Formats: sequence, structure tokens, C-alpha cells
Amino acid sequence: MAGKTPVAIVFDTFGSVVDWRGSLIAELTAFGKQRGIAADWTALVDAWRAAYHPSMDRVRKGEAPWTKLDDLHRASLDQLVAKFGIQGLSEADLVHINLGWHRLNPWPDSVPGLTRLKRRYIIGPLSNGNVALLTKMAKHAGLPWDMVFGSDLFGHYKPDPETYLGVAKLLDVEPGQVMMAAAHNGDLANARRCGLMTAFFPRPNEYGPHRKRNDAAEQDWDVVARDIEDLATQLGA
Amino acid sequence: MAGKTPVAIVFDTFGSVVDWRGSLIAELTAFGKQRGIAADWTALVDAWRAAYHPSMDRVRKGEAPWTKLDDLHRASLDQLVAKFGIQGLSEADLVHINLGWHRLNPWPDSVPGLTRLKRRYIIGPLSNGNVALLTKMAKHAGLPWDMVFGSDLFGHYKPDPETYLGVAKLLDVEPGQVMMAAAHNGDLANARRCGLMTAFFPRPNEYGPHRKRNDAAEQDWDVVARDIEDLATQLGA
Repeated sequence: MAGKTPVAIVFDTFGSVVDWRGSLIAELTAFGKQRGIAADWTALVDAWRAAYHPSMDRVRKGEAPWTKLDDLHRASLDQLVAKFGIQGLSEADLVHINLGWHRLNPWPDSVPGLTRLKRRYIIGPLSNGNVALLTKMAKHAGLPWDMVFGSDLFGHYKPDPETYLGVAKLLDVEPGQVMMAAAHNGDLANARRCGLMTAFFPRPNEYGPHRKRNDAAEQDWDVVARDIEDLATQLGA
Repeated sequence: MAGKTPVAIVFDTFGSVVDWRGSLIAELTAFGKQRGIAADWTALVDAWRAAYHPSMDRVRKGEAPWTKLDDLHRASLDQLVAKFGIQGLSEADLVHINLGWHRLNPWPDSVPGLTRLKRRYIIGPLSNGNVALLTKMAKHAGLPWDMVFGSDLFGHYKPDPETYLGVAKLLDVEPGQVMMAAAHNGDLANARRCGLMTAFFPRPNEYGPHRKRNDAAEQDWDVVARDIEDLATQLGA
């Protein structure tokens, strides 16, 4: 990368830094086996994630008041447990399953790459997760964030500009001194519209066998990397 | 410590974790020597800190709108430079001097003690500093925070309850699951009134030769420690 470098790099988290799908499927499959509860846990996880954007959009459009992601996840889970006809789950079980989003595992390059980047840059998640979710996930996964930019700090979900611009405001830097890093072209396009720098790296296995877009960069992002280790290399960290 | 342990421990920062007075005096003395600018830098630092509480109280009482600490520090600095008759400072110099609060050094036990506590607890500053100040200070001093609770997240300064309770809300825990750790009895008294657990450790050299209170615990705090390393020991970390 030639020219200017950022002061801070903020990362999309679900899919970009942690493997939400693989982590949740593994945890729920083990849970079901241990408890003798039969269900298509893989289909449940995919349906749960499919409910993610619609649930946030209701908040973003003002159809629902500000609701943190943990609570949106729980409402979607309750609907899906009923829809899938899963029997035998107690309230404690549902709480435990919902907090699975706090126990997601990193992709193999995430911790080593972030550890290198942290030496030279301020790093944090800029995620639709709330601070509690992201802080506990970081403890679980060993993500060495300097600061956790949860959506509840802004009372807004991405792609609302309050999120991207809110990072710059809290760090007291210009938007152009913040780099958004993500495996999702759409997130980067929205960050770029707010004046942020951008870095793309693909996560081809995010959706397992369900192939999606985002296998390749769709704009001339400031950095296009193979993964977070490669991003660190390209940024001299 | 018998009985319950916290989920998170939040630290007063100026004086409790970092040596603001020694750091600023050393930096300004070196700056003055290098630039040939004569001033009683020690007196300036003490007067600057003396302006700290009155400047925040104006905000707390609604006499001024929300103003982040970096900006309160700058306004106080400008007044003191005029009062002390210090000549020859450019705007860039004033910016540099003001950001001295981002470059404070830790007490010797702070980094090893926090590093131990981080293994077992969520740790963060709960400070009147703003996020930018605290994040950059952490990079400078090597403070391994999980999350940075700057006053600008709450739009309130301690001892407003919004700060102590705001940590519990962001972490989605009960106030009694958060421990406030500080070298200042007053901070702990206010935290206790909000339902937080409390830990005291003295910093007898915070004010240099200007002896103040806070040399000893003034209430039966949940933990009374010698320093942050001893706090880690008492909390089993």
C-alpha cells in the first residue's frame, strides 16, 4: 500500500474475524447430542443468521426502538425454536444458546494478524454486536482489541453513518484516518461513503456450502489482502 | 477476599494507574530545556490538575454543555499559560503539551497487575478521560484493557451515577458484578452508592510532596490492597 496509513483499523467481526457459522453449528450439535435433543442445528443456525439483517432493519427504519443485538438474537431464536418444533429447551437453555454468539471462534489468521497490527495501529471491532457480546467474544477468542466499538455505543446499526463516523469522533481523528476492514464489500462501500479507508479480505467459508458474493473485491479498496495476516504485512506491521 | 467475585474490574486512571504528575513534570521540564523556554513547570502541572475538578463540575452542574476532557484540559492550559506568563509557545506547542495527558506513564505494578487480572476478569478504565485520551494512553503505557470506558461514552463525568451504572449496562451485568478499583476513597464511596464492589490501593506519591488524603482506606472496601499486583493476588489472578 502506497501513501497514507490509518491511525486506527476497525474490523467487521461476524464472518470477517470470527467463524460464526462453524462455531455455532459445532456448539449446538454437541449440545443437542449431550442433551438428547434432536434438531437440524445446521439449518437452525443458517435461519438464525438469515433473520439478522431483517431484525436490525426494523430498528434502523424506526419500526422498533433501539434494541441491542443480544435481544434481537433472542427474539429470532424464540421464533425459530417454535418454527423448527424443537422440544425440551428450558429458559436457561435458551439463554445459553443465545450467548453462543459470545463464544465464536476466530479464523486461524485472526489472532496472529491482529496481534501484529496492534503494535502499530489502534484496533477494534466495529460490529453490530453490542459491547457485552463483543467484549466477551474477545475474551473467549483472544482478540487483542484496544477498544470495542459496539453498536450500542452509537445507538445505531451499520450501515447507518453514525457507526462509521462515530469511531472517528470517539478517537478524535478524521474519518480518513480510520480504515474499515471486512470480508464484505457492502460494509466497505458504506464505510467509503463516510470517508473511511478500506481493506478487503475474503472469507470464502463464511457460509459453508452456501456460496455467496464477497469472494473477491468489488471496488478498488485501499488494501486487498488474502487474510488478516496478509493485511498486517501490507500495512507494515 | 471471601465470597463473591466480580465479572469486571474498572479502574480510576489518573493517579491510580498512571503517574500523571511525575509524567507531566518530566515531559514539560525536558520540553522547556530543549526549547529554551523558562517556566516553573512543576507549579504549572499542579495548577493544571487543580483546575480539573472545577472544570468538570461546570459541566456536571449544567453550566457548560458536554465537553470532553481533552478540551477542558486545553482551556485550563490556555488560562494557566497566560497566568504564568509563559512566552514563546506556538499553537502546535500547546497541542503537543495538552496531549501530554495521552502519554502518562504507569506505576511500576500497573502493567504486571493488570496483565494478571485480565486473564480472569474483564478490565477497563472508568475514567473522566475521553476515549481518545484513554486509548492512546493505553497504547503509550501498555495498559492491556479489554474495553475503554471513557466519560464521553456516557456524556457524564464521575461521580455522576450514569458513569458507574453505565459500565454495568454496557457489559449487561448487575452493578454488583462490577468492581471499582481506585486510589481515591471518594471515587469508591460514589461507586458503592451505585451498588458496585470496591477495591482500594494507595498511591502515596500521586501528589509528590503535597500530601493529601487517600493514604489509607476510609471505609471497609471489599478489597484493600497494597497495589495492583497485590489486588491481582487477592482476587486469585
